Amino acid sequence: MLSVAIAQARAGLAEGGIPIGAALFDTSGALLGKGHNRRVQDDDPSMHAETAAFRDAGRRSGYRDTVMVTTLSPCWYCSGLVRQFGIGRVVIGEATTFHGGHDWLAEHGVAITVLDDQECVTMMREFIAARPALWNEDIGE
Amino acid sequence: MLSVAIAQARAGLAEGGIPIGAALFDTSGALLGKGHNRRVQDDDPSMHAETAAFRDAGRRSGYRDTVMVTTLSPCWYCSGLVRQFGIGRVVIGEATTFHGGHDWLAEHGVAITVLDDQECVTMMREFIAARPALWNEDIGE
Repeated sequence: MLSVAIAQARAGLAEGGIPIGAALFDTSGALLGKGHNRRVQDDDPSMHAETAAFRDAGRRSGYRDTVMVTTLSPCWYCSGLVRQFGIGRVVIGEATTFHGGHDWLAEHGVAITVLDDQECVTMMREFIAARPALWNEDIGE
Repeated sequence: MLSVAIAQARAGLAEGGIPIGAALFDTSGALLGKGHNRRVQDDDPSMHAETAAFRDAGRRSGYRDTVMVTTLSPCWYCSGLVRQFGIGRVVIGEATTFHGGHDWLAEHGVAITVLDDQECVTMMREFIAARPALWNEDIGE
């Protein structure tokens, strides 16, 4: 499932954007929605990878049986999304270059898996080194 | 400032949507962005009032000097937005019909004002009574 999120992140990078991708699946592994950060592409600060995947999945009455897969530890904004909508599980490519709210989600009963994927780490390291101001803007720092 | 958010909520209601509105101001009182919940109108579960106002304000390098005004206590998703981007102050029309993450924001240094505005309370009470399934969908319950 991480490969779908990584492909989204690479698509974002190719568009000149921030290389973070995400995808929402159901527990059978069916893809419900996918997306990537669109701050640069759409001039839209509200579209992080996770919110883009959530939007792409459309309206649902519940999320307990869904899995959010993201290339990077979810920031507080995206962690709040997971908590509010009761997404049952989050799979995270890496939490080395950025540590968001996934410990808080675990405390509130969300199943968290951090994969420590080196492709995700390298992609973010190279991006942050190349465009630090854009990265800081995206996380409000 | 609340009147801008209430006007947004009423516009959303008139469109057949969920009557929650928000607006982002700077500390001088200048309006930066405004919006309302767009779940019904755009089939977009990611557009809560606060995220719509945030999007409408466009890209900014910082939010410490901004005030988010919303007709209703912000849910975890919107509270996460406030925390991640360092919005300095949140003014809330009411927290009677729904109690979101504003206590958590206060613990993390955000200035919180709850106005207990009766127009906001009545608007939400009537909406929840009329469309309980839609309301539960919007908050993931």
